[in-house]
Amino acid sequence: MNSSTASANTLRAIDAARNLLGDRLSTAPAVREQHGKDLTWNVGVPPDAVAFVHSTEEVQALVKICAAESVPVIAFGTGTSLEGHFAAVKGGICIDISAMNTILEVNAEDQDVRVQAGVTRKQLNTHLRDQGLFFPIDPGADASLGGMAATRASGTNAVRYGTMRDNVMGLTVVLADGKIIKTGTRARKSSAGYDLTRLFVGSEGTLGVITEVALKLYGIPEGISAGICAFPSIEACCLVAIETIQLGIPIARIELVDAEHIRAINTYSKLSMPEVPTLFVEFHGTKAGVAEQSTLFSEIASSHGGTEINWATQEEDRLKLWQARHDAFWATKAMKPGKEEAIATDVCVPISRLAECVVATQQDLAAHQVYGPIIGHVGDGNFHVVLFCDRSNADEVARVKGVYQRLIERALAMGGTCTGEHGIGSGKRDYLRLEHGDAVETMRAIKTALDPKNIMNPGKNAGP
Amino acid sequence: MNSSTASANTLRAIDAARNLLGDRLSTAPAVREQHGKDLTWNVGVPPDAVAFVHSTEEVQALVKICAAESVPVIAFGTGTSLEGHFAAVKGGICIDISAMNTILEVNAEDQDVRVQAGVTRKQLNTHLRDQGLFFPIDPGADASLGGMAATRASGTNAVRYGTMRDNVMGLTVVLADGKIIKTGTRARKSSAGYDLTRLFVGSEGTLGVITEVALKLYGIPEGISAGICAFPSIEACCLVAIETIQLGIPIARIELVDAEHIRAINTYSKLSMPEVPTLFVEFHGTKAGVAEQSTLFSEIASSHGGTEINWATQEEDRLKLWQARHDAFWATKAMKPGKEEAIATDVCVPISRLAECVVATQQDLAAHQVYGPIIGHVGDGNFHVVLFCDRSNADEVARVKGVYQRLIERALAMGGTCTGEHGIGSGKRDYLRLEHGDAVETMRAIKTALDPKNIMNPGKNAGP
Repeated sequence: MNSSTASANTLRAIDAARNLLGDRLSTAPAVREQHGKDLTWNVGVPPDAVAFVHSTEEVQALVKICAAESVPVIAFGTGTSLEGHFAAVKGGICIDISAMNTILEVNAEDQDVRVQAGVTRKQLNTHLRDQGLFFPIDPGADASLGGMAATRASGTNAVRYGTMRDNVMGLTVVLADGKIIKTGTRARKSSAGYDLTRLFVGSEGTLGVITEVALKLYGIPEGISAGICAFPSIEACCLVAIETIQLGIPIARIELVDAEHIRAINTYSKLSMPEVPTLFVEFHGTKAGVAEQSTLFSEIASSHGGTEINWATQEEDRLKLWQARHDAFWATKAMKPGKEEAIATDVCVPISRLAECVVATQQDLAAHQVYGPIIGHVGDGNFHVVLFCDRSNADEVARVKGVYQRLIERALAMGGTCTGEHGIGSGKRDYLRLEHGDAVETMRAIKTALDPKNIMNPGKNAGP
Repeated sequence: MNSSTASANTLRAIDAARNLLGDRLSTAPAVREQHGKDLTWNVGVPPDAVAFVHSTEEVQALVKICAAESVPVIAFGTGTSLEGHFAAVKGGICIDISAMNTILEVNAEDQDVRVQAGVTRKQLNTHLRDQGLFFPIDPGADASLGGMAATRASGTNAVRYGTMRDNVMGLTVVLADGKIIKTGTRARKSSAGYDLTRLFVGSEGTLGVITEVALKLYGIPEGISAGICAFPSIEACCLVAIETIQLGIPIARIELVDAEHIRAINTYSKLSMPEVPTLFVEFHGTKAGVAEQSTLFSEIASSHGGTEINWATQEEDRLKLWQARHDAFWATKAMKPGKEEAIATDVCVPISRLAECVVATQQDLAAHQVYGPIIGHVGDGNFHVVLFCDRSNADEVARVKGVYQRLIERALAMGGTCTGEHGIGSGKRDYLRLEHGDAVETMRAIKTALDPKNIMNPGKNAGP
């Protein structure tokens, strides 16, 4: 649908929104396209209009307009989610919150912060640096904190600091009827009422639009040490991750990067790392604690054939190291000319099953001649397979879809989840019931209770 | 209401339940009384009958019977909650899950466990000890894990390991229509669907009956060190807690015990601790890590006038130390003959406001001549005031109620919560709206969606 074919109620809603926002309401095709399509094979659908908002009150006014006309509302942060979260599958108005980028309140003495939902994680960390504090959740992309809350993001660091589930203290949310609620308090724990904060975290805009986020912060550790360790096999990498977790070593990051990814990074970033399965790790703590953890880890790594580690303790060296890891995303995109990246998918399994799951997935990729580099936050049992295919080749598409489906089934059979951090969006709705069974009806009942007209990001997650 | 005055539909439900359970369905007055009243001033109301169940399927059958007759269902674990959670305020059948005490599955290599809801925390830890694992959440009472999940319990250790919110991985729940759902997976993180686990945790039986609980476990630390430190004032204790948290020392327990409590413990347990405000602390980690943390803490304590600490590293000595802390509950009950304990209430504030909140509360107690010893999990900003009064003295009751009300208002004004861990139950319903405003309507909408007949523990938490 585009605005020229939009329904009468959508056109009325767009007119009302334009009255509210003036030229901050756009129906330009390029703007709409950019707000309707992610970087994956998931189907993109442009919204009928994009509203660039400045305040919770503007979001409220827009939602009231859309509610009155039964027009869908799709919240949009930086557009870096990967499961078709913001495709306007039923049309509607996209609410772009990226200009809501004010850091509202830093409480250094309590290590918490309140931000508008459009503040990005890098913006926040730049702001905090002088106060010796940081926000650890790092999904790779410089995503908005509202979007990260809405998708229950995690990434590197989650193995030590948890995910958005664990680090959001409270939210301001505009509900489907335009009512504004605040969830949570600044207390570190509470038994007062239902945990609405956790309900909205991960609900992907289907229950309301998040406009403010309160977050836990952490002191920048006295000691930080990072290193790279190459291994003879991907199984060895996984076994090292398993033992590290089972021994309770409080590792801050432990990232698996397979040989294909290393090759891509070497090409993209002009490096010369050995093109074998590799772990990127980091430890946080007191200086003595970090030294102790590094030594323990080195012993585990060495027992599985890992190379000696040159520990990087200076910030400059660590940034370079992690830049290589973060380049993997774009480096891999630049690989395999002639084949398009289909999707960077993800699953998560209990740590004891990690090696088995990764190895079986590699075997499946090989057996069906599918190119799918693997990269993962393996301390959580979470890994990504970046699937490529020539979409004009029906046979190849079918083989990729087979690998994708079996990956999810394999993770579920091991007691895992169909997505550790990328979410359901429109891409994984078929798997939600496979994982949760009848509990999906309970989710649906909540959705219907809070959004009876189904205007909040319809067609996503557990909603109709 | 008692069964002789129960309504016709209640009597039909009781008959059907007796057909199901035989002599495991009791209407004996003593049994009903014991299942309707907690240890506080909250009003107790016995249920019309008590059902002693053995399985999820029996709970399901009972809920279906009650749903068909629109009769309330009240889940009951060990009866150790403190906010009138299980008072049968609208009559109904109490489902006692204490005989559902099977540990179903220990996954040592993934550090997780699945138990029936009636398993208690001490039973679980006894079972786990040989495997080098433990479950840290310790609310004092040897509560059932189902009850602890339902009330979002925490207690000592939460400052390091989190609360039930953070440690429940998944649940089996019987819903109001008798449907059984499972929430969560064995993966450590997931972005798949709404976070139903967190919604049921803390919902106090108002959304469903929890029959199985999957929990995170932890390796028993290599090093554990505990100590007691006496201080010149309660403010000094709070300032030490604040600095410890702000410095990011990963303390496992930091418990404030005021002079009145120490006096009570000395009498009750025949000890001779100095009768001054005292911190009980414990550190977990590697041996070197624990030594480092203890040294850092001692320096902070000393700078606020704390006494030298004799560190207890042997299990026997630590158990003795913590027994004294846990005796506080019963020791205080034995105090003040002639006055009844009214309620052990609790609030939680941002850590930076802790000293101010505790001191202001003590001043308020003194100004209104109310006896209210203070004890707290101060690392979380959470503390209890154990309020006593002669309930036949209307003036004293009014003074106690005034202190209670102002305590909650003080905590909320500081950005805190009206209850850090005891919950809402029937006792704190008036304060739920004060804390959450319109968000209570959102909670109510969820309640109504999942339990349209309002049979699940009616009159509690956010429900009608």
